Amino acid sequence: MLRILMVGDIVGRPGRMAVKQLIHPLKKKYGIDFVIANGENAAGGNGLTQEIADELLNDGIDFITMGNHTWDKKEILEFIDLEPRLIRPANYPPGTPGRGSAVVRVTKDIKVGIVNLSGRVFLPPLDCPFRTAETIMNTLLKETKIIIIDFHAEATSEKIAFGWFMDGKASAVLGTHTHVPTADERILPQGTGYITDVGMTGPRDSVLGVKADIVISKFITQLPVRFEVAAGPAQLNGVLLHINETTGKTEHIVRIQETVTT
Amino acid sequence: MLRILMVGDIVGRPGRMAVKQLIHPLKKKYGIDFVIANGENAAGGNGLTQEIADELLNDGIDFITMGNHTWDKKEILEFIDLEPRLIRPANYPPGTPGRGSAVVRVTKDIKVGIVNLSGRVFLPPLDCPFRTAETIMNTLLKETKIIIIDFHAEATSEKIAFGWFMDGKASAVLGTHTHVPTADERILPQGTGYITDVGMTGPRDSVLGVKADIVISKFITQLPVRFEVAAGPAQLNGVLLHINETTGKTEHIVRIQETVTT
Amino acid sequence: MLRILMVGDIVGRPGRMAVKQLIHPLKKKYGIDFVIANGENAAGGNGLTQEIADELLNDGIDFITMGNHTWDKKEILEFIDLEPRLIRPANYPPGTPGRGSAVVRVTKDIKVGIVNLSGRVFLPPLDCPFRTAETIMNTLLKETKIIIIDFHAEATSEKIAFGWFMDGKASAVLGTHTHVPTADERILPQGTGYITDVGMTGPRDSVLGVKADIVISKFITQLPVRFEVAAGPAQLNGVLLHINETTGKTEHIVRIQETVTT
Amino acid sequence: MLRILMVGDIVGRPGRMAVKQLIHPLKKKYGIDFVIANGENAAGGNGLTQEIADELLNDGIDFITMGNHTWDKKEILEFIDLEPRLIRPANYPPGTPGRGSAVVRVTKDIKVGIVNLSGRVFLPPLDCPFRTAETIMNTLLKETKIIIIDFHAEATSEKIAFGWFMDGKASAVLGTHTHVPTADERILPQGTGYITDVGMTGPRDSVLGVKADIVISKFITQLPVRFEVAAGPAQLNGVLLHINETTGKTEHIVRIQETVTT
Ligand SMILES: [Fe+2]
Ligand SMILES: [Fe+2]
Ligand SMILES: [Fe+2]
Ligand SMILES: [Fe+2]
Ligand SMILES: [Fe+2]
Ligand SMILES: [Fe+2]
Ligand SMILES: [Fe+2]
Ligand SMILES: [Fe+2]
Repeated sequence: MLRILMVGDIVGRPGRMAVKQLIHPLKKKYGIDFVIANGENAAGGNGLTQEIADELLNDGIDFITMGNHTWDKKEILEFIDLEPRLIRPANYPPGTPGRGSAVVRVTKDIKVGIVNLSGRVFLPPLDCPFRTAETIMNTLLKETKIIIIDFHAEATSEKIAFGWFMDGKASAVLGTHTHVPTADERILPQGTGYITDVGMTGPRDSVLGVKADIVISKFITQLPVRFEVAAGPAQLNGVLLHINETTGKTEHIVRIQETVTT
Repeated sequence: MLRILMVGDIVGRPGRMAVKQLIHPLKKKYGIDFVIANGENAAGGNGLTQEIADELLNDGIDFITMGNHTWDKKEILEFIDLEPRLIRPANYPPGTPGRGSAVVRVTKDIKVGIVNLSGRVFLPPLDCPFRTAETIMNTLLKETKIIIIDFHAEATSEKIAFGWFMDGKASAVLGTHTHVPTADERILPQGTGYITDVGMTGPRDSVLGVKADIVISKFITQLPVRFEVAAGPAQLNGVLLHINETTGKTEHIVRIQETVTT
Repeated sequence: MLRILMVGDIVGRPGRMAVKQLIHPLKKKYGIDFVIANGENAAGGNGLTQEIADELLNDGIDFITMGNHTWDKKEILEFIDLEPRLIRPANYPPGTPGRGSAVVRVTKDIKVGIVNLSGRVFLPPLDCPFRTAETIMNTLLKETKIIIIDFHAEATSEKIAFGWFMDGKASAVLGTHTHVPTADERILPQGTGYITDVGMTGPRDSVLGVKADIVISKFITQLPVRFEVAAGPAQLNGVLLHINETTGKTEHIVRIQETVTT
Repeated sequence: MLRILMVGDIVGRPGRMAVKQLIHPLKKKYGIDFVIANGENAAGGNGLTQEIADELLNDGIDFITMGNHTWDKKEILEFIDLEPRLIRPANYPPGTPGRGSAVVRVTKDIKVGIVNLSGRVFLPPLDCPFRTAETIMNTLLKETKIIIIDFHAEATSEKIAFGWFMDGKASAVLGTHTHVPTADERILPQGTGYITDVGMTGPRDSVLGVKADIVISKFITQLPVRFEVAAGPAQLNGVLLHINETTGKTEHIVRIQETVTT
């Protein structure tokens, strides 16, 4: 049985501190083979730098996915094509820097495909994630049956519909982006592990990682504010999958929610 | 200790069947004093009729809140001003039929205030829910310290910000609308019970209650479709609060997730 | 010199009455060779029926384009593949009924290409109109240099950007959808005629063709309303192009605004 | 007869150069008594500084209105409460810096009320502009019958509905924000001058003032870009009103479109 942990959007320094303290112990505790994390907010709440990607990859993260904040730190353009353990949503237009999927050798015998896609409801109009997924699956399935999709999207309708669409095709469809873990983890009838959102790895007492009073002020005054990552205890939100490496199907899915002081 | 159950958006006949089978037993099992349910999708997936309101109120629901689908069945205009156990979002403009809050006597000594508000992110531009909440709280707090807010909203940022805004003011801020239960239930530092979304009471194998293949087709083709409530097993999603009736603070919050065949 | 008239969104019966009274006289008056009209609102304000398409084609319209209301009348699915003088936005996904472009013989020697595209800002997420346009142009340019694009879009930024993108490639980029004629008609430096919006052909004293008091009530109350096409005088909004049939470039562009009693 | 010129959104240095070259001559040529301009993009394309406000007021602009870009330059917070010739949308929440309306003495006998409001369709959720307008009108009408409203909004439906709503109440409802002049200027039946959008005062060969190739690239790649104000000839878009100072009604409305090299 292959054990894969997906970690929800890592936000800023508190999120990285939670990763540093928790990932290696979690790997040992659960016998985890491979850790994927969404890193779109890892650098100060927005985007990713080379240094921070390296830090995450040193602290036990094996692979990084992104989302609508992929390009927030411009320097990603300098390393996104060089780092094989990093993907961005696959449904950006052809020609976009970086890749939208990858196949990684996890053990001598096992390869895992990872796909990153962005939803389009309440988000920018990328290419159709459903059709893009079909195309990518056709390619990846030639290499491995074990395929994990990070579906980075806002609307629950689009995420759940995509989960059903992929049922029996991908090993798992794991939502990210809303920064709130959902309690609907399940295995769909054809064997695809599913959760609407994995949640956030970052400051617990915050609004999606940002200081609450700033966000409240934004909603009430409608004036521009300057977001700051919140302080205090940090949570790690993840989902642990047990995947049958012969069938590629998920046989167990469980939420992981840990908190640390930072 | 006052025990209040909030039930997530009831969708169509399957949702009502879950209510019929589960609410009375749940009340007995947990010693629940008062059940609030979001009923905006109770009538065929959209809106509420007199007959269905009566059905829910007979089957153990004590109070009904609504949301952006309040007006989908026009006949609600005929009874919304007559039914004291029914409210719609309070931040509709002045003059809107119905009420946005109510105070209900639960026992001889205990009154509960219920408030319904709608978010504005990715939703129609109603009045500011933050400012509206402040005004309503000033009135309700004269009658009772126990106040439950159904915050019907899409964006996690707005919901969580609203939760922090109300911390120490309301007994609980319980999100509805996304039809997916979140796993972030907690008691905020000043005693307000909080969850981003209570979830849905309706057909489990569906997209927010609707047949999955119809919604998938909608996303892929972008052509109009006719939504149909899905069949199969029905889930009930709820949140159970233990509230200290002297302080009005939540002392315990737990998710309820049940499934029945329908 | 080829004279082409583009007519803005025809709304309901008043719009059709304006067409009936005005198109034949305008053709004669200006020596117009070919009339294209946006027909997405021709049937009662929403969509198009076979009968109404025939009526428009009898009353002097030579070709019909559509937009986001293409599918409002379901019966269009029965005739959209049969009517060669009707197209819908080309950036619907592959497999969508109907076509997104056409080449029409206007005189013995002259063929005109017509393309219909939808913007994506504030509109559903179809395929990228810029990339779709490039693909279609490659095909159409093999048949004719005279190509008229109806760009059905909301945001002025997307429309103007698209105009510049097509400058020197299409004969004209003519915006539709907002139902308000713009005063920015011009010939771009490489010879492409451009206007952000052609406007509306329908009841003048209205809100986009709908009775004003209904729309005002909608904005103030945020309650559902039932739109009705307004009565009273009807306007025809159009743009007349003089196109050099050898170069395919627009040499003259002028707005046409007429009003009739209906 | 009072002659008022409303100038569309001034964009960056090219827009200010057009103002500098054109406003004084236009005032003389048409006998204009009062010039209002939308200044939300006057400083480098976004927001307004004290220096630039002073420049505009020196170059013949008598009064400045704003819009959704009001707060883009933070320093406006330092002078918005001090400058009597500057307003921002009135439907920001109570407590917002600055004012949403003003009454200005134009001649010894004539006072003009100016109101700035923001639409809410495709824009942030401010307070209802319809209800806010009613409240403000009640106050202003006590001082003068001559009231000009800059309705800064995106959707044509909201703008036209607002025009009809104000017909017979305000002297004129003049739309701004889309940066494209519309050709629907008219006098509504009760005497209110109306246009959906006054247009833009800034670089003509651009996308809303921004270099076209940058905006095209944004739409095609969906990657972040850095907007730059375009160079080349600058246009001034305005609307000239003749208002009967006894009745407050508009008796004549005409578009002004001028171009200068900069
Ligand atoms: Fe994120
Ligand atoms: Fe995101
Ligand atoms: Fe709902
Ligand atoms: Fe809802
Ligand atoms: Fe239309
Ligand atoms: Fe349209
Ligand atoms: Fe502007
Ligand atoms: Fe604006």
